[in-house]
Amino acid sequence: MEPGLGVGLGVGLGRAGAAPGLKAAFSSAHIPTEQLELAASYVSDAQYNRNIHFETSSQAIRLHKIYNHWAAQRVIYLFVLVDLLLALFEEPAVYLLPIWVSLVCLLTFVGRLAHFSKIIPTKVFWRDAKNICLIITIMLTLIDMTVYWAVVITGHDTVRWSRVLRPLFCVNFTESRQLRRAFRNIRHTLPEILSVFVLFMFSVAVFSLMALKLFEKRNLTTDKGAPYFTNYLDIFFELYVLVTTANSPDVMMPAYNVSWGYSIFFIVYIIINTYTFMSVFLAVVYNNYKKHLKNEVRKLVFMKHRKMVEAFNLLKVQHGSEFIILEADWSQLVRIVAPEIPSAHRALLWRVCDEDQKGYVGQEAFIQLADLLNIQVVQMKERIHPLEVRMPSIYTSAVSQFIRRMVKHRGFRYMYDFIIVVNTIFICGDEANPYISEAEWVFLTLYLIEIMLKLYTYEPRVYFAKNQFWNWYDTIIVLAALLGTVINTALKSANGYSNQQILDIVFILRILRTVRIIDSFYRFRILLNTLLNLLPTMLTYAMLTVIVYYTFAIIGMEAFKGRIRFYGSNSSDPAANYCGNPALKGTQFAADGYCKNNFNNIIHSFILLVELTVVNQWHNILFDIKYKKKIWIYFVIFHVVVVIIFINIFIAFVLEAFFVEHSLARSAVETGSEIMIVNNVTHADNKLSFVAGYKTVDTLLQHMFEAELKPKDQLPTLEEIEEFSPDDMVPHFLTPHRA
Amino acid sequence: MEPGLGVGLGVGLGRAGAAPGLKAAFSSAHIPTEQLELAASYVSDAQYNRNIHFETSSQAIRLHKIYNHWAAQRVIYLFVLVDLLLALFEEPAVYLLPIWVSLVCLLTFVGRLAHFSKIIPTKVFWRDAKNICLIITIMLTLIDMTVYWAVVITGHDTVRWSRVLRPLFCVNFTESRQLRRAFRNIRHTLPEILSVFVLFMFSVAVFSLMALKLFEKRNLTTDKGAPYFTNYLDIFFELYVLVTTANSPDVMMPAYNVSWGYSIFFIVYIIINTYTFMSVFLAVVYNNYKKHLKNEVRKLVFMKHRKMVEAFNLLKVQHGSEFIILEADWSQLVRIVAPEIPSAHRALLWRVCDEDQKGYVGQEAFIQLADLLNIQVVQMKERIHPLEVRMPSIYTSAVSQFIRRMVKHRGFRYMYDFIIVVNTIFICGDEANPYISEAEWVFLTLYLIEIMLKLYTYEPRVYFAKNQFWNWYDTIIVLAALLGTVINTALKSANGYSNQQILDIVFILRILRTVRIIDSFYRFRILLNTLLNLLPTMLTYAMLTVIVYYTFAIIGMEAFKGRIRFYGSNSSDPAANYCGNPALKGTQFAADGYCKNNFNNIIHSFILLVELTVVNQWHNILFDIKYKKKIWIYFVIFHVVVVIIFINIFIAFVLEAFFVEHSLARSAVETGSEIMIVNNVTHADNKLSFVAGYKTVDTLLQHMFEAELKPKDQLPTLEEIEEFSPDDMVPHFLTPHRA
Repeated sequence: MEPGLGVGLGVGLGRAGAAPGLKAAFSSAHIPTEQLELAASYVSDAQYNRNIHFETSSQAIRLHKIYNHWAAQRVIYLFVLVDLLLALFEEPAVYLLPIWVSLVCLLTFVGRLAHFSKIIPTKVFWRDAKNICLIITIMLTLIDMTVYWAVVITGHDTVRWSRVLRPLFCVNFTESRQLRRAFRNIRHTLPEILSVFVLFMFSVAVFSLMALKLFEKRNLTTDKGAPYFTNYLDIFFELYVLVTTANSPDVMMPAYNVSWGYSIFFIVYIIINTYTFMSVFLAVVYNNYKKHLKNEVRKLVFMKHRKMVEAFNLLKVQHGSEFIILEADWSQLVRIVAPEIPSAHRALLWRVCDEDQKGYVGQEAFIQLADLLNIQVVQMKERIHPLEVRMPSIYTSAVSQFIRRMVKHRGFRYMYDFIIVVNTIFICGDEANPYISEAEWVFLTLYLIEIMLKLYTYEPRVYFAKNQFWNWYDTIIVLAALLGTVINTALKSANGYSNQQILDIVFILRILRTVRIIDSFYRFRILLNTLLNLLPTMLTYAMLTVIVYYTFAIIGMEAFKGRIRFYGSNSSDPAANYCGNPALKGTQFAADGYCKNNFNNIIHSFILLVELTVVNQWHNILFDIKYKKKIWIYFVIFHVVVVIIFINIFIAFVLEAFFVEHSLARSAVETGSEIMIVNNVTHADNKLSFVAGYKTVDTLLQHMFEAELKPKDQLPTLEEIEEFSPDDMVPHFLTPHRA
Repeated sequence: MEPGLGVGLGVGLGRAGAAPGLKAAFSSAHIPTEQLELAASYVSDAQYNRNIHFETSSQAIRLHKIYNHWAAQRVIYLFVLVDLLLALFEEPAVYLLPIWVSLVCLLTFVGRLAHFSKIIPTKVFWRDAKNICLIITIMLTLIDMTVYWAVVITGHDTVRWSRVLRPLFCVNFTESRQLRRAFRNIRHTLPEILSVFVLFMFSVAVFSLMALKLFEKRNLTTDKGAPYFTNYLDIFFELYVLVTTANSPDVMMPAYNVSWGYSIFFIVYIIINTYTFMSVFLAVVYNNYKKHLKNEVRKLVFMKHRKMVEAFNLLKVQHGSEFIILEADWSQLVRIVAPEIPSAHRALLWRVCDEDQKGYVGQEAFIQLADLLNIQVVQMKERIHPLEVRMPSIYTSAVSQFIRRMVKHRGFRYMYDFIIVVNTIFICGDEANPYISEAEWVFLTLYLIEIMLKLYTYEPRVYFAKNQFWNWYDTIIVLAALLGTVINTALKSANGYSNQQILDIVFILRILRTVRIIDSFYRFRILLNTLLNLLPTMLTYAMLTVIVYYTFAIIGMEAFKGRIRFYGSNSSDPAANYCGNPALKGTQFAADGYCKNNFNNIIHSFILLVELTVVNQWHNILFDIKYKKKIWIYFVIFHVVVVIIFINIFIAFVLEAFFVEHSLARSAVETGSEIMIVNNVTHADNKLSFVAGYKTVDTLLQHMFEAELKPKDQLPTLEEIEEFSPDDMVPHFLTPHRA
């Protein structure tokens, strides 16, 4: 995973079975199955960075294994997703769905919790805020559903307030620890942000006071004839909006029209508040987020080490003055922890652990195991093409060899680059022209031929390797385009007209196909790879963002739904001019035709929130500020949370990705989700490569920090770790069985 | 300057005159004055990081000294400034000024160039692009002036195209090397930015094509009834504007009104282009600017070393197997280089150089001198208050001591914090109220008393030390407010009414006074210090920005002046509704009342450019895009240069300042322009402090990198330095005299 480990892997391999005598001498040692199972649970927890304080009874261990089974986790993820999606299907709904779906979700959650309560000691279960929170949320949801059902039956209307609580299901199940960690990071970043925010607000307040003193006596009016800068709170709000640049230069124009001198006030304001403070926010978020992430990684390394030591203590036998684990026990353990690993690979892992072929491993070597299990062992070099296996005579014939040489030739790539360029020209043309629509078939065929030729030349599993982004891209796009075109043609010949949705998709696919040309330019490839490497890193972060958006969308929906109506784009209803809300008559909101920017359902709410994130015009979207003062609180909080904190974290991620890219040697960086090839190890007949892939959702940054921490071979001390959250602690009652 | 040096300074002091015998033995060695002068020139160039290839004749050396005299440099700076300011005083002028001012500027420049040509060899002079550039600029300006004068005399109108060249005077004089270096950094950053920019434009182009294919057949119309997304170039421009967020959400509304599904297209576009690419620009600018700055600093260190070696070779005498410089020669050299240094300080410097009191220095120790001369030696601790010297009996009396103890007490500060709060409340009140306007005198008096008490308690030179930002702030603000209030009262009693301008200033000063309360909160003080530390760093950068703005303003003025007219804010002229330009009838520009956003004079141009930097509404400010296609080129180039490059450099500076602050121990950081106190050295009766101040305009970053480079005691090799510009090279014909 980290370079240091890679070097370790290379040493000492290939001298299998060097000390059979010692090995035999200890093979009689026998560990009870129960203990092995317990140790396996520890190792598995260490491997996946889980921190569950499970009981050590054999039943609890079995349940713990089931609890962490991928299928059980997927089911919970699915139901959490369904529960969140319910917002689409309930009043105000996009499509209405019966109420029992919601009940099924709740039942699943209850089942999951009950399962969890069997694994860990009762005391621990009830002391854990996450569980309490889940139980309360479930109960509140039930109460809310009952009340809502009763009220609706009697013909009244009420608020489904419990829907705001749904994201809690996302965060509070044990398997969402990645999400919780990210939230914790943000929470820890808050104090520092807060102090900058207070200073920033102070600065806005002081400037507002200056503006009031400068302009209140001057009787200026805005464009619309309204009084200009006469009320302190209005000024404060206008200047806050100016920080987001949304009302520049309009806010300045009335003063600037009187004298250019006043514009100095605004320019100074913009330099200090818009540019300097916003950059300071970025700096503080960046600095702190990174610092706290480092701390979290330190904790993870510490916890992993602790759990591996527990497992070691369960399996160790004395050998002279030191404690060791025998190959037989080790092998059995790995078989339990990772039954999917074939025995050849297990043997390879053993040889890596037992560098000196002594037939046993010490504590240090054993602890490596958690990391070793996360390393993906990929057989990839010099695979034989399946066609060569099936019909060697044809595949190795002169014609076949010529075709393969041709495909591997540079000219082949150039030819297809040229085809892409020609295709682009055709796409730009009018597709109503029959020549152009016919040409599409030619291009499709050409692309299909390309893919087939490449599959003929290269081994399919190599062609579709995880890191071959562009091969996947090509294949998916071309096949989808083929499918779309076929369906469209079929529909056309059946009904006589094309389906516009399918046509849209086909057009977009055609255009996306041409994007592949980027790959032919080295500089762009490097850039794109950096960005693609960013994607897995951003997964947790994207989920976090969705949760925040979801919460705001639900609150917005409950608070503001139905206030603004959209009458269709060509409505002749006079109410369409003021979105069905007389209070909006004559506002900028109505004039701009923003009626569809409302909270009437979850989709509209999400789109509105995206618009608010982009910031422009947000003061106008904030429709009835003049009428209902409290509304701006919602919008300003959204601005602070999403624009100041989340967008800055996003920028910090991109910056970090570029700095990492810059500091890593470019040659070592591979495309896709793999970061670096650690080592090549010869084993049996195949060439094996250890590829440090990311099985877990761990982020790029985490790996960087881990790499930074590990080479010193030092475990972070408890002092270095700033703050432990309850779900990180290994309970102290988990004492080793054989001390 | 760097910590390593600080430690060095502390060692060996206080053992003055330890080896008088050796000292006497060599004192007879005599260096000719000529050679001393030459060496002094080298040292002085090293001290100020100058790279002038001056001739070694005694006349050239004398001229070189005059050329670099601060007064000569100030004169040139002044005239460059006047030349730039001419834009205010020429047609289209804010105030018209006679033409001879321009001629005086040119004459000064010619004189300066002639002076420079006497210093360096003719061949070098004519090979230097800077000189050629200056000569051509001067000639072009003269030609332009003549033509303009002739044309205007005959009653025609013409363009003063040479004004665009004026910023070249800023950049091309030898003393602007700091500016040139910054420009060079940006130029070196360009290739990498370019490749991102091309990829970004490709992405916008692909999305535009998709938008065209999606919307062209749908016959959608915008809010104003115009066809929506039917022309490729229009779509491209609209989507480019969307990257700046200026037309969000308007650009999406027509499609969104038809179906929410289309908003997915825009959301994906925003995530990829607005957020990801803009962050990538920041990352690339940040990364490269830093990298190239590091390289520039490496060059500086290298050059400094070379020049010091030259100087050493001129003064060295043989002593055993090594070459050395004797105290007498050294002392004479320093006297020539820095005549303003008193002899006590010179003796101190010598003791720092000659650590072991041997009476001579070797090459290594001699090379330090360039850095030592840049260290500000400040006598500051335990100064005796002048009043104590003058009238000790009163100053040390019990009452006086009580007062001083009181002022130093925490309660004093709290009391004044409270007064500030009360004052703020009064300021918020209506100043027409006589009680409130009278109260102002009370507050002014209180603040004056505070300053006087503090001056009584603390030594004035300590109180007004360079790093006492808030003391300076207080004093200036209070005195200015006092002056303003007195003038205003005088005017009022004389004329019966107040001068509004003075009142405005007084109001602002009153509000600014309350800002001092920030200093009472530790967290805010730290934050503010970080920002204040940024200021000197930003000087060069700010000049750069002004030059870029100036160039754009002049081009904009020449190209677009007079197209748009502003008729005053209450004009009843019907032409006022369309800014006097019929082409603007019915445009958003006219509707928003943007008539004053024009290029009619340099001030309007600057303000307009600031508005374009803030970005919002820039597509509307780009007034007649629909009528004159070529105009958008100007605006887009401005956007790329200022928003994408310069603003990102600004953000990079702020980020860097925060990271530096974070990595330096906070205790070592002092306010103001000083970064750290290097060492305390006892000398004679006073306690002396070496304060590593910044005499030169060197930036924070540079010092950081220098610190990073120095501790290894390694000179950067020529291979490490990526690119030499001609003005960095010490000419090879400068061979040492005594080799």
